[in-house]
Amino acid sequence: MTESELFDEEPDDTHEAIMQATYRALCAHGYADLTIQRIGDEFAKSKSLLYHHYEDKDALLVEFLDFMLENYTETLPRIDHDDAWAELQAVLEYVFSPAADREDDFIVAMVELRAQAAHDETFRAAFTRSDQFIHDQITAIIQSGIDEGVFADVDPNQIAALILMTFTGATTHRSTTEDTDVLTDVHTELQQYLDTRLRRQADQ
Amino acid sequence: MTESELFDEEPDDTHEAIMQATYRALCAHGYADLTIQRIGDEFAKSKSLLYHHYEDKDALLVEFLDFMLENYTETLPRIDHDDAWAELQAVLEYVFSPAADREDDFIVAMVELRAQAAHDETFRAAFTRSDQFIHDQITAIIQSGIDEGVFADVDPNQIAALILMTFTGATTHRSTTEDTDVLTDVHTELQQYLDTRLRRQADQ
Repeated sequence: MTESELFDEEPDDTHEAIMQATYRALCAHGYADLTIQRIGDEFAKSKSLLYHHYEDKDALLVEFLDFMLENYTETLPRIDHDDAWAELQAVLEYVFSPAADREDDFIVAMVELRAQAAHDETFRAAFTRSDQFIHDQITAIIQSGIDEGVFADVDPNQIAALILMTFTGATTHRSTTEDTDVLTDVHTELQQYLDTRLRRQADQ
Repeated sequence: MTESELFDEEPDDTHEAIMQATYRALCAHGYADLTIQRIGDEFAKSKSLLYHHYEDKDALLVEFLDFMLENYTETLPRIDHDDAWAELQAVLEYVFSPAADREDDFIVAMVELRAQAAHDETFRAAFTRSDQFIHDQITAIIQSGIDEGVFADVDPNQIAALILMTFTGATTHRSTTEDTDVLTDVHTELQQYLDTRLRRQADQ
Protein backbone atom coordinates (compact mmCIF):
# COMPACT_ATOMS: atom_id res chain seq x y z
CA MET A 1 0.00 0.00 0.00
CA THR A 2 1.30 3.44 -0.85
CA GLU A 3 1.06 6.33 1.57
CA SER A 4 -1.55 8.14 -0.53
CA GLU A 5 -3.74 5.02 -0.64
CA LEU A 6 -3.60 4.64 3.12
CA PHE A 7 -3.79 8.22 4.37
CA ASP A 8 -5.69 11.43 3.61
CA GLU A 9 -3.53 14.39 2.70
CA GLU A 10 -4.20 15.84 6.15
CA PRO A 11 -4.59 13.28 8.96
CA ASP A 12 -8.03 13.48 10.58
CA ASP A 13 -6.77 13.19 14.16
CA THR A 14 -3.75 12.53 16.35
CA HIS A 15 -4.10 8.77 16.02
CA GLU A 16 -4.01 8.91 12.24
CA ALA A 17 -1.05 11.32 12.41
CA ILE A 18 0.84 8.82 14.57
CA MET A 19 0.02 6.00 12.15
CA GLN A 20 1.24 8.09 9.22
CA ALA A 21 4.49 8.92 11.05
CA THR A 22 4.92 5.19 11.73
CA TYR A 23 4.38 4.38 8.06
CA ARG A 24 6.99 6.93 6.98
CA ALA A 25 9.58 5.91 9.57
CA LEU A 26 9.07 2.22 8.76
CA CYS A 27 9.63 2.83 5.03
CA ALA A 28 12.68 4.99 5.72
CA HIS A 29 14.47 2.84 8.33
CA GLY A 30 13.04 -0.69 8.16
CA TYR A 31 12.06 -2.65 11.26
CA ALA A 32 15.47 -3.28 12.82
CA ASP A 33 16.55 0.37 12.81
CA LEU A 34 13.16 1.78 13.77
CA THR A 35 12.93 3.62 17.07
CA ILE A 36 10.18 5.63 18.76
CA GLN A 37 12.58 8.57 18.34
CA ARG A 38 12.61 8.12 14.57
CA ILE A 39 8.83 7.83 14.42
CA GLY A 40 8.78 11.05 16.44
CA ASP A 41 10.94 12.71 13.79
CA GLU A 42 8.10 12.14 11.28
CA PHE A 43 5.48 13.45 13.70
CA ALA A 44 4.56 17.12 13.61
CA LYS A 45 3.19 17.24 17.16
CA SER A 46 4.93 16.72 20.48
CA LYS A 47 7.10 13.61 20.67
CA SER A 48 6.24 13.19 24.33
CA LEU A 49 2.76 12.19 23.15
CA LEU A 50 4.34 9.12 21.57
CA TYR A 51 6.41 8.20 24.60
CA HIS A 52 3.34 8.70 26.77
CA HIS A 53 1.11 6.37 24.72
CA TYR A 54 3.43 3.56 23.70
CA GLU A 55 5.62 1.38 25.85
CA ASP A 56 7.96 0.50 22.99
CA LYS A 57 8.08 0.37 19.22
CA ASP A 58 6.48 -3.09 19.09
CA ALA A 59 3.35 -1.87 20.90
CA LEU A 60 3.05 0.94 18.36
CA LEU A 61 3.66 -1.43 15.43
CA VAL A 62 0.95 -3.88 16.49
CA GLU A 63 -1.49 -0.94 16.59
CA PHE A 64 -0.20 0.07 13.16
CA LEU A 65 -0.96 -3.42 11.79
CA ASP A 66 -4.52 -3.18 13.08
CA PHE A 67 -4.90 0.32 11.62
CA MET A 68 -3.84 -1.01 8.23
CA LEU A 69 -6.27 -3.89 8.48
CA GLU A 70 -9.15 -1.50 9.25
CA ASN A 71 -8.23 0.66 6.29
CA TYR A 72 -7.32 -2.16 3.93
CA THR A 73 -10.56 -2.20 1.95
CA GLU A 74 -10.25 1.52 1.23
CA THR A 75 -6.90 0.95 -0.46
CA LEU A 76 -8.21 -1.68 -2.87
CA PRO A 77 -8.71 -0.56 -6.47
CA ARG A 78 -12.25 0.42 -7.36
CA ILE A 79 -13.86 -2.58 -8.96
CA ASP A 80 -17.16 -3.74 -10.37
CA HIS A 81 -18.77 -5.72 -7.58
CA ASP A 82 -21.32 -7.21 -9.99
CA ASP A 83 -18.60 -9.08 -11.87
CA ALA A 84 -16.85 -11.64 -9.65
CA TRP A 85 -14.29 -12.55 -12.31
CA ALA A 86 -13.25 -8.91 -12.87
CA GLU A 87 -13.06 -8.40 -9.12
CA LEU A 88 -10.80 -11.43 -8.65
CA GLN A 89 -8.55 -10.26 -11.51
CA ALA A 90 -8.25 -6.81 -9.92
CA VAL A 91 -7.12 -8.30 -6.59
CA LEU A 92 -4.52 -10.46 -8.38
CA GLU A 93 -3.34 -7.45 -10.37
CA TYR A 94 -2.98 -5.48 -7.14
CA VAL A 95 -0.73 -8.12 -5.57
CA PHE A 96 1.34 -9.12 -8.60
CA SER A 97 1.72 -5.87 -10.54
CA PRO A 98 5.12 -4.20 -10.09
CA ALA A 99 5.10 -1.95 -7.06
CA ALA A 100 6.17 1.67 -6.94
CA ASP A 101 9.50 2.42 -5.25
CA ARG A 102 7.89 3.69 -2.12
CA GLU A 103 5.72 0.66 -1.88
CA ASP A 104 8.80 -1.58 -2.19
CA ASP A 105 10.16 -0.09 1.04
CA PHE A 106 6.85 -0.78 2.67
CA ILE A 107 6.73 -4.42 1.50
CA VAL A 108 10.26 -4.92 2.86
CA ALA A 109 9.14 -3.52 6.21
CA MET A 110 6.09 -5.80 6.27
CA VAL A 111 8.23 -8.89 5.60
CA GLU A 112 10.50 -7.87 8.49
CA LEU A 113 7.48 -7.21 10.72
CA ARG A 114 6.00 -10.57 9.80
CA ALA A 115 9.20 -12.35 10.83
CA GLN A 116 8.69 -10.91 14.34
CA ALA A 117 5.49 -12.98 14.43
CA ALA A 118 7.66 -16.11 14.39
CA HIS A 119 8.66 -15.47 18.02
CA ASP A 120 6.15 -12.87 19.29
CA GLU A 121 2.55 -13.91 19.90
CA THR A 122 1.09 -10.38 19.73
CA PHE A 123 2.48 -9.95 16.22
CA ARG A 124 1.35 -13.49 15.40
CA ALA A 125 -2.22 -12.66 16.47
CA ALA A 126 -2.16 -9.50 14.32
CA PHE A 127 -1.00 -11.39 11.21
CA THR A 128 -3.53 -14.17 11.89
CA ARG A 129 -6.31 -11.52 11.86
CA SER A 130 -4.96 -9.92 8.74
CA ASP A 131 -4.58 -13.18 6.78
CA GLN A 132 -8.03 -14.29 7.92
CA PHE A 133 -9.46 -11.01 6.63
CA ILE A 134 -7.88 -11.44 3.18
CA HIS A 135 -8.98 -15.09 3.10
CA ASP A 136 -12.57 -14.00 3.88
CA GLN A 137 -12.50 -11.31 1.20
CA ILE A 138 -11.38 -13.74 -1.50
CA THR A 139 -13.88 -16.36 -0.33
CA ALA A 140 -16.69 -13.77 -0.60
CA ILE A 141 -15.73 -12.86 -4.17
CA ILE A 142 -15.71 -16.53 -5.23
CA GLN A 143 -18.99 -17.18 -3.42
CA SER A 144 -20.64 -14.26 -5.24
CA GLY A 145 -19.50 -15.77 -8.57
CA ILE A 146 -21.05 -19.11 -7.58
CA ASP A 147 -24.27 -17.35 -6.56
CA GLU A 148 -24.37 -15.52 -9.89
CA GLY A 149 -23.95 -18.84 -11.70
CA VAL A 150 -20.76 -17.76 -13.50
CA PHE A 151 -18.41 -19.89 -11.35
CA ALA A 152 -18.52 -23.67 -10.86
CA ASP A 153 -19.90 -25.01 -7.59
CA VAL A 154 -16.52 -25.25 -5.83
CA ASP A 155 -15.45 -24.95 -2.19
CA PRO A 156 -14.65 -21.20 -2.10
CA ASN A 157 -12.68 -21.49 1.16
CA GLN A 158 -10.30 -24.02 -0.30
CA ILE A 159 -9.57 -22.00 -3.43
CA ALA A 160 -9.22 -18.81 -1.38
CA ALA A 161 -6.65 -20.62 0.80
CA LEU A 162 -4.49 -21.39 -2.23
CA ILE A 163 -4.75 -17.80 -3.52
CA LEU A 164 -3.87 -16.40 -0.07
CA MET A 165 -0.81 -18.66 0.06
CA THR A 166 0.46 -17.35 -3.29
CA PHE A 167 -0.02 -13.78 -1.98
CA THR A 168 2.03 -14.50 1.16
CA GLY A 169 4.63 -16.25 -0.97
CA ALA A 170 4.81 -13.44 -3.55
CA THR A 171 5.19 -10.70 -0.93
CA THR A 172 8.01 -12.63 0.75
CA HIS A 173 9.62 -13.57 -2.57
CA ARG A 174 9.55 -10.02 -3.94
CA SER A 175 11.67 -8.60 -1.13
CA THR A 176 13.93 -11.54 -0.28
CA THR A 177 15.18 -12.68 -3.71
CA GLU A 178 16.61 -11.05 -6.82
CA ASP A 179 14.43 -13.06 -9.16
CA THR A 180 11.17 -11.16 -9.44
CA ASP A 181 10.47 -12.36 -13.03
CA VAL A 182 9.09 -15.55 -11.56
CA LEU A 183 6.15 -13.52 -10.19
CA THR A 184 4.94 -12.88 -13.75
CA ASP A 185 4.80 -16.66 -14.26
CA VAL A 186 2.91 -17.11 -11.00
CA HIS A 187 0.37 -14.44 -12.00
CA THR A 188 -0.19 -15.98 -15.46
CA GLU A 189 -0.50 -19.52 -14.09
CA LEU A 190 -2.88 -18.41 -11.34
CA GLN A 191 -5.13 -16.76 -13.92
CA GLN A 192 -5.18 -19.91 -16.08
CA TYR A 193 -5.83 -22.12 -13.09
CA LEU A 194 -8.73 -19.97 -11.87
CA ASP A 195 -10.15 -19.75 -15.36
CA THR A 196 -10.17 -23.57 -15.62
CA ARG A 197 -11.30 -24.24 -12.07
CA LEU A 198 -13.97 -21.54 -11.79
CA ARG A 199 -15.17 -20.63 -15.26
CA ARG A 200 -14.60 -23.55 -17.66
CA GLN A 201 -15.84 -26.06 -15.12
CA ALA A 202 -18.98 -23.92 -14.73
CA ASP A 203 -19.65 -24.33 -18.48
CA GLN A 204 -19.58 -28.13 -18.32
CA MET B 1 14.56 -30.41 7.67
CA THR B 2 15.25 -32.28 10.86
CA GLU B 3 18.74 -32.65 12.26
CA SER B 4 18.90 -36.37 11.46
CA GLU B 5 17.90 -35.71 7.84
CA LEU B 6 20.62 -33.11 7.42
CA PHE B 7 23.53 -34.58 9.39
CA ASP B 8 25.21 -37.94 9.92
CA GLU B 9 25.34 -39.14 13.49
CA GLU B 10 29.03 -38.25 13.60
CA PRO B 11 30.04 -35.20 11.52
CA ASP B 12 32.57 -36.11 8.79
CA ASP B 13 34.80 -33.10 9.35
CA THR B 14 35.18 -29.80 11.18
CA HIS B 15 33.10 -27.93 8.61
CA GLU B 16 30.15 -30.28 9.06
CA ALA B 17 30.58 -30.07 12.85
CA ILE B 18 30.35 -26.27 12.63
CA MET B 19 27.25 -26.50 10.45
CA GLN B 20 25.62 -28.91 12.92
CA ALA B 21 26.42 -26.60 15.83
CA THR B 22 24.88 -23.73 13.85
CA TYR B 23 21.75 -25.77 13.20
CA ARG B 24 21.35 -26.59 16.90
CA ALA B 25 22.01 -23.06 18.11
CA LEU B 26 19.62 -21.62 15.52
CA CYS B 27 16.82 -23.98 16.61
CA ALA B 28 17.47 -23.25 20.29
CA HIS B 29 17.83 -19.44 20.19
CA GLY B 30 16.33 -18.18 16.89
CA TYR B 31 18.08 -15.63 14.70
CA ALA B 32 17.85 -12.53 16.90
CA ASP B 33 19.37 -14.15 19.98
CA LEU B 34 21.98 -16.16 18.09
CA THR B 35 25.63 -15.35 18.80
CA ILE B 36 28.92 -16.94 17.74
CA GLN B 37 29.33 -17.71 21.47
CA ARG B 38 26.10 -19.73 21.48
CA ILE B 39 27.08 -21.61 18.35
CA GLY B 40 30.38 -22.32 20.13
CA ASP B 41 28.43 -23.83 23.04
CA GLU B 42 27.09 -26.49 20.65
CA PHE B 43 30.55 -27.14 19.19
CA ALA B 44 32.71 -29.86 20.73
CA LYS B 45 36.01 -28.48 19.45
CA SER B 46 37.79 -25.24 20.26
CA LYS B 47 35.60 -22.13 20.07
CA SER B 48 38.54 -20.09 18.87
CA LEU B 49 38.24 -22.04 15.59
CA LEU B 50 34.86 -20.36 15.08
CA TYR B 51 36.10 -16.87 15.91
CA HIS B 52 39.07 -17.44 13.63
CA HIS B 53 37.00 -18.48 10.61
CA TYR B 54 33.97 -16.22 10.77
CA GLU B 55 33.81 -12.47 11.01
CA ASP B 56 30.32 -12.47 12.53
CA LYS B 57 27.24 -14.65 12.83
CA ASP B 58 25.86 -13.47 9.46
CA ALA B 59 28.96 -14.74 7.61
CA LEU B 60 28.51 -18.12 9.28
CA LEU B 61 24.78 -18.18 8.53
CA VAL B 62 25.23 -17.48 4.81
CA GLU B 63 27.64 -20.43 4.69
CA PHE B 64 25.05 -22.47 6.58
CA LEU B 65 22.40 -21.62 3.95
CA ASP B 66 24.72 -22.83 1.19
CA PHE B 67 25.51 -26.00 3.14
CA MET B 68 21.79 -26.74 3.42
CA LEU B 69 21.28 -26.14 -0.28
CA GLU B 70 24.09 -28.59 -1.15
CA ASN B 71 22.59 -31.23 1.12
CA TYR B 72 18.96 -30.52 0.29
CA THR B 73 18.43 -33.39 -2.15
CA GLU B 74 19.68 -35.90 0.42
CA THR B 75 16.95 -34.83 2.83
CA LEU B 76 14.10 -35.45 0.36
CA PRO B 77 12.00 -38.56 0.92
CA ARG B 78 13.00 -41.55 -1.19
CA ILE B 79 10.69 -41.62 -4.15
CA ASP B 80 10.07 -43.48 -7.36
CA HIS B 81 11.78 -41.42 -10.03
CA ASP B 82 9.95 -43.29 -12.78
CA ASP B 83 6.60 -41.92 -11.63
CA ALA B 84 6.45 -38.13 -12.00
CA TRP B 85 3.03 -37.87 -10.32
CA ALA B 86 4.15 -39.84 -7.24
CA GLU B 87 7.30 -37.76 -7.06
CA LEU B 88 5.34 -34.48 -7.17
CA GLN B 89 2.97 -35.76 -4.46
CA ALA B 90 5.92 -36.68 -2.25
CA VAL B 91 7.39 -33.17 -2.52
CA LEU B 92 3.99 -31.62 -1.66
CA GLU B 93 3.63 -34.01 1.27
CA TYR B 94 7.08 -33.05 2.52
CA VAL B 95 6.18 -29.34 2.56
CA PHE B 96 2.59 -29.52 3.79
CA SER B 97 2.63 -32.44 6.22
CA PRO B 98 2.75 -31.39 9.89
CA ALA B 99 6.30 -30.87 11.03
CA ALA B 100 7.92 -32.41 14.10
CA ASP B 101 8.55 -30.08 17.03
CA ARG B 102 12.22 -29.77 16.33
CA GLU B 103 11.56 -28.94 12.73
CA ASP B 104 9.13 -26.20 13.81
CA ASP B 105 11.99 -24.41 15.54
CA PHE B 106 14.01 -24.72 12.39
CA ILE B 107 11.23 -23.33 10.16
CA VAL B 108 10.85 -20.37 12.53
CA ALA B 109 14.60 -19.74 12.26
CA MET B 110 14.47 -19.93 8.46
CA VAL B 111 11.63 -17.38 8.31
CA GLU B 112 13.68 -15.03 10.50
CA LEU B 113 16.78 -15.62 8.36
CA ARG B 114 14.80 -14.96 5.22
CA ALA B 115 13.64 -11.60 6.57
CA GLN B 116 17.31 -10.59 6.78
CA ALA B 117 17.36 -10.96 2.99
CA ALA B 118 15.00 -7.99 2.80
CA HIS B 119 17.86 -5.63 3.72
CA ASP B 120 21.05 -7.70 3.22
CA GLU B 121 22.15 -8.58 -0.31
CA THR B 122 24.34 -11.55 0.70
CA PHE B 123 21.34 -13.24 2.32
CA ARG B 124 19.22 -12.22 -0.67
CA ALA B 125 21.66 -13.91 -3.05
CA ALA B 126 21.60 -17.08 -0.91
CA PHE B 127 17.78 -17.26 -0.92
CA THR B 128 17.70 -16.51 -4.66
CA ARG B 129 19.97 -19.54 -5.24
CA SER B 130 17.91 -21.71 -2.94
CA ASP B 131 14.54 -20.76 -4.51
CA GLN B 132 15.99 -21.20 -7.99
CA PHE B 133 17.15 -24.69 -7.01
CA ILE B 134 13.69 -25.72 -5.77
CA HIS B 135 12.10 -24.16 -8.86
CA ASP B 136 14.45 -26.19 -11.09
CA GLN B 137 13.73 -29.40 -9.18
CA ILE B 138 9.95 -29.03 -9.59
CA THR B 139 10.34 -28.05 -13.24
CA ALA B 140 12.40 -31.22 -13.85
CA ILE B 141 9.75 -33.45 -12.28
CA ILE B 142 6.99 -31.89 -14.42
CA GLN B 143 9.17 -32.12 -17.55
CA SER B 144 9.77 -35.83 -16.92
CA GLY B 145 6.00 -36.38 -16.68
CA ILE B 146 5.56 -34.58 -20.02
CA ASP B 147 8.33 -36.68 -21.58
CA GLU B 148 6.69 -39.87 -20.28
CA GLY B 149 3.40 -38.77 -21.84
CA VAL B 150 1.51 -38.85 -18.53
CA PHE B 151 1.32 -35.04 -18.13
CA ALA B 152 -0.23 -32.57 -20.56
CA ASP B 153 2.09 -30.48 -22.72
CA VAL B 154 2.24 -27.50 -20.34
CA ASP B 155 4.91 -24.88 -19.58
CA PRO B 156 6.66 -26.65 -16.67
CA ASN B 157 8.45 -23.46 -15.54
CA GLN B 158 5.19 -21.61 -15.11
CA ILE B 159 3.54 -24.34 -13.06
CA ALA B 160 6.71 -24.81 -10.97
CA ALA B 161 6.63 -21.05 -10.22
CA LEU B 162 3.13 -21.33 -8.76
CA ILE B 163 4.07 -24.39 -6.69
CA LEU B 164 7.22 -22.66 -5.39
CA MET B 165 5.13 -19.64 -4.37
CA THR B 166 2.77 -21.81 -2.32
CA PHE B 167 5.83 -23.39 -0.61
CA THR B 168 7.25 -19.98 0.32
CA GLY B 169 3.80 -18.87 1.47
CA ALA B 170 3.17 -22.03 3.51
CA THR B 171 6.53 -21.88 5.30
CA THR B 172 5.93 -18.24 6.22
CA HIS B 173 2.30 -18.85 7.15
CA ARG B 174 3.08 -21.85 9.37
CA SER B 175 5.35 -19.87 11.69
CA THR B 176 3.74 -16.41 11.61
CA THR B 177 0.04 -17.18 12.18
CA GLU B 178 -2.03 -19.31 14.54
CA ASP B 179 -4.21 -20.67 11.76
CA THR B 180 -2.37 -23.68 10.36
CA ASP B 181 -5.59 -25.51 9.35
CA VAL B 182 -5.64 -23.43 6.21
CA LEU B 183 -2.54 -25.34 5.03
CA THR B 184 -4.61 -28.53 4.74
CA ASP B 185 -6.94 -26.67 2.36
CA VAL B 186 -3.97 -25.39 0.35
CA HIS B 187 -2.54 -28.91 0.04
CA THR B 188 -5.88 -30.40 -1.08
CA GLU B 189 -6.56 -27.62 -3.59
CA LEU B 190 -3.02 -27.82 -4.99
CA GLN B 191 -3.45 -31.56 -5.57
CA GLN B 192 -6.78 -31.03 -7.36
CA TYR B 193 -5.35 -28.23 -9.46
CA LEU B 194 -2.31 -30.28 -10.52
CA ASP B 195 -4.51 -33.27 -11.23
CA THR B 196 -6.68 -31.18 -13.57
CA ARG B 197 -3.85 -29.19 -15.14
CA LEU B 198 -1.36 -32.03 -15.62
CA ARG B 199 -3.22 -35.33 -15.75
CA ARG B 200 -6.81 -34.76 -16.89
CA GLN B 201 -5.72 -32.37 -19.61
CA ALA B 202 -3.24 -35.05 -20.78
CA ASP B 203 -6.19 -37.46 -21.28
CA GLN B 204 -8.06 -35.06 -23.55
